[in-house]
Amino acid sequence: DRPLAFIAGPCQMESRDHALETAEALKTIAAHLGIGLVYKSSFDKANRTSASGARGIGLDRALPVFAEIRETIGLPVLTDVHETWQCAPVAEVVDILQIPAFLCRQTDLLAAAAATGRAVNVKKGQFLAPWDMRHVVDKLAGFGGANILVTERGASFGYNTLVTDMRSLPLLARFGAPVIFDATHSVQQPGGLGSASGGQREFVPVLARAAVAVGVAGVFIETHPDPDSAPSDGPNMVAIRDLPELIEMLLAFDRLAKARPVTLA
Amino acid sequence: DRPLAFIAGPCQMESRDHALETAEALKTIAAHLGIGLVYKSSFDKANRTSASGARGIGLDRALPVFAEIRETIGLPVLTDVHETWQCAPVAEVVDILQIPAFLCRQTDLLAAAAATGRAVNVKKGQFLAPWDMRHVVDKLAGFGGANILVTERGASFGYNTLVTDMRSLPLLARFGAPVIFDATHSVQQPGGLGSASGGQREFVPVLARAAVAVGVAGVFIETHPDPDSAPSDGPNMVAIRDLPELIEMLLAFDRLAKARPVTLA
Amino acid sequence: DRPLAFIAGPCQMESRDHALETAEALKTIAAHLGIGLVYKSSFDKANRTSASGARGIGLDRALPVFAEIRETIGLPVLTDVHETWQCAPVAEVVDILQIPAFLCRQTDLLAAAAATGRAVNVKKGQFLAPWDMRHVVDKLAGFGGANILVTERGASFGYNTLVTDMRSLPLLARFGAPVIFDATHSVQQPGGLGSASGGQREFVPVLARAAVAVGVAGVFIETHPDPDSAPSDGPNMVAIRDLPELIEMLLAFDRLAKARPVTLA
Amino acid sequence: DRPLAFIAGPCQMESRDHALETAEALKTIAAHLGIGLVYKSSFDKANRTSASGARGIGLDRALPVFAEIRETIGLPVLTDVHETWQCAPVAEVVDILQIPAFLCRQTDLLAAAAATGRAVNVKKGQFLAPWDMRHVVDKLAGFGGANILVTERGASFGYNTLVTDMRSLPLLARFGAPVIFDATHSVQQPGGLGSASGGQREFVPVLARAAVAVGVAGVFIETHPDPDSAPSDGPNMVAIRDLPELIEMLLAFDRLAKARPVTLA
Repeated sequence: DRPLAFIAGPCQMESRDHALETAEALKTIAAHLGIGLVYKSSFDKANRTSASGARGIGLDRALPVFAEIRETIGLPVLTDVHETWQCAPVAEVVDILQIPAFLCRQTDLLAAAAATGRAVNVKKGQFLAPWDMRHVVDKLAGFGGANILVTERGASFGYNTLVTDMRSLPLLARFGAPVIFDATHSVQQPGGLGSASGGQREFVPVLARAAVAVGVAGVFIETHPDPDSAPSDGPNMVAIRDLPELIEMLLAFDRLAKARPVTLA
Repeated sequence: DRPLAFIAGPCQMESRDHALETAEALKTIAAHLGIGLVYKSSFDKANRTSASGARGIGLDRALPVFAEIRETIGLPVLTDVHETWQCAPVAEVVDILQIPAFLCRQTDLLAAAAATGRAVNVKKGQFLAPWDMRHVVDKLAGFGGANILVTERGASFGYNTLVTDMRSLPLLARFGAPVIFDATHSVQQPGGLGSASGGQREFVPVLARAAVAVGVAGVFIETHPDPDSAPSDGPNMVAIRDLPELIEMLLAFDRLAKARPVTLA
Repeated sequence: DRPLAFIAGPCQMESRDHALETAEALKTIAAHLGIGLVYKSSFDKANRTSASGARGIGLDRALPVFAEIRETIGLPVLTDVHETWQCAPVAEVVDILQIPAFLCRQTDLLAAAAATGRAVNVKKGQFLAPWDMRHVVDKLAGFGGANILVTERGASFGYNTLVTDMRSLPLLARFGAPVIFDATHSVQQPGGLGSASGGQREFVPVLARAAVAVGVAGVFIETHPDPDSAPSDGPNMVAIRDLPELIEMLLAFDRLAKARPVTLA
Repeated sequence: DRPLAFIAGPCQMESRDHALETAEALKTIAAHLGIGLVYKSSFDKANRTSASGARGIGLDRALPVFAEIRETIGLPVLTDVHETWQCAPVAEVVDILQIPAFLCRQTDLLAAAAATGRAVNVKKGQFLAPWDMRHVVDKLAGFGGANILVTERGASFGYNTLVTDMRSLPLLARFGAPVIFDATHSVQQPGGLGSASGGQREFVPVLARAAVAVGVAGVFIETHPDPDSAPSDGPNMVAIRDLPELIEMLLAFDRLAKARPVTLA
């Protein structure tokens, strides 16, 4: 089995400088630790709790920066898409298109993403049972998606709370696509700050090591030079300076987990 | 307070004939009972559980039928939109644009819907607390939406199950928009049939009378001449022939509820 | 169908004087409104969140007061039991033994309560599906319980929150026992005040009218002359002075609901 | 930090022979693997779903067998108590009294268990938030309990389903008592078989390795020579012959977890 991969970066693209600086820092960490790392950032936070929340620099300004990160820094890039028309232009400059959890059942968006030929990472909706992701994966495959990833990011548990059901990881693995654990949004408290979502950063290593122990292909961690000043998801992002220690810890659990894999009948 | 209104019609537009026939039947019922009724049908089921589920006749074929229902039969019309570009053409021929529950936080879709000047009915996400709908309503109002409705349709409760929290009705009413109770999707069992959602039609009158007793502006009920042969939401649609008795019962509860309104401090 | 009955009284017996005073006030209300009313009070709050919470005056001091309320004031009496040995002595002086929700699956407690020959009101556990109450009712009947009532009081919904699923009322009715809706504990917020449970009194009329509209045999409402100074469940008790208006409203919904009963197939 | 301990044994005591045979087998496994192991068995299943479910051999017949296991085989013993009067006689022959999850808030039962001077393992109720277990631990400590353990066994998640929130493990650890993960009941499906609870044995290693990776003091695993013929909890018990491999795997994760402990601020 292949070693643990990482999808990491700031929640939203704040500026070209900020993006290049964080990509450079992550490139250094990845090289140092010998890991595969995909740079993640959103050009548009299309579903902020409140309309007054910062949405990022937008598609037009972000695409050249994604291209620059790929070409100059040499990291593969992932970003999320929200409407069908975005898929083709975004696919020009990124390696992986991501389908947001709220949109995981939008058939046309899945079709447009699959049609680009790029890899597609689809997040499991907070409202979806693990077994129902089979249909989402089948939709992508049916539309010609060749390289599909599925991401666990927590399930609705009462109001303003998510819970991660670790049973979902081997259940998702049954569909044949690599399973990613999103350690950032699993500790989100939707709407928990009134006009923005809260989060519990201290649980990122807790849930991440549990998921890695169960067995996943990769971990998704949003990270930022200064999370508390980030325009979105600050409460659940990890500081870049804390990332190497977190990754090293997860790699140790990954080696053990993959030496003793757990599989369902 | 105004008497109870109804939003009713088949889940998806199956054909022009089917649409006109059901609209005619509903027009007769509405006239007979003296109620306000908006005809509802979807031109596209954009988020079916499985890609093989029938999606409806599509935007291009549906728009003239909506226009015909409005002009010839004289019923106001509601349909749901899924991407921003659909809002303007759909608004040409319908009275109310509906935002699906999964999409209730997509800022651009809310903006595009509000910009049409038409009324907008936004469904509360299955993953959202009632108080967090304030931000959705605020987004619509901030984008110029003048005529906003909010719809309760159940909250995620474990896997493949929704629960209706009746407390949400007066909580939603606080935002100033009329509150609709969706009696059809509240009894849905998401993914409950394996490759399609199940439902429990026998609970439609149970939840609807509870909601009307608490106090709502309207009730949303999908209905069909033959629900068990409908291409979607059959298990939770009500047969048109059973609709008059259901509506009469709800009107009786509505009169009592509005004579003794309940309001939160 | 018989008219709506009420189970009402202060959460815990605070003193003989307090009990007689509240029973007298409730007797007057019941006579004035022409309703059946059972006086409820606990001799022991056996499962307070914190050990420092007041527990009531205890079995030995409470039993003569229950007897006095029955004989002097003429109200039937209900109280809850927590261990098997309490059932026989309590049954000497009360009309209905109540099984707390946490204890609804304790076989020996159900057996001991049934063996007294008194009516038994068993609350549905917060952790139990409506259909699983069949086994609880069957246990009671199997132990000779002749007069069984079942009470809905909400289901766990994430942390520190309960939700009332109105579908449970007709589901519980299938077991043949009269169904009571507990309007007080359904609006409880378990552990919500840190070292005590919180509550949302303003939702008592909301959920109670919804439940009565669906159709129940009775409503359970804890009430107090001054809820905000009560030693337990203050945040969700209704002031006695507000009770007549609440009851009158519920009676109006009950008349309508029983004129148009809803039954499941 | 001390190495992982185990609480293991058949769900209920079926007979003296069965108990001694399983205790002997577990003693051999513990000695071979060099682990601390406490023998667990219930003398009475006091809250079976249905009254017709087998309850075990009863207090009187079980106590001498517990004594025999302690003295002859040399394993420490744990069993659960359901009413206050059971605590003193049970404490004569076992090392740890266990408080069932449904009963974790029964103040008198906690007091009686603490008063015995024995260690007390209290399971977190399926209806309780992790932070609310502080009051349960405080109650035990206030009643003189000197040796307290707390056990995570899943939280209610919709109907007939439990979910394990791995965040609860470090939250429970804050109260100072060793935290046990119950891998057997966390995979229970309450009421899932109609007249008995179902279970998903294949998830025992999944959740157990996740919990051990997060960090716990011990793991609770019910085990049986032939789970599919066991009178209770068969679907979620592990066969004794599969136990050594499971334990070895968990020990490997425990060594790693305790070398890199995770603690909350």
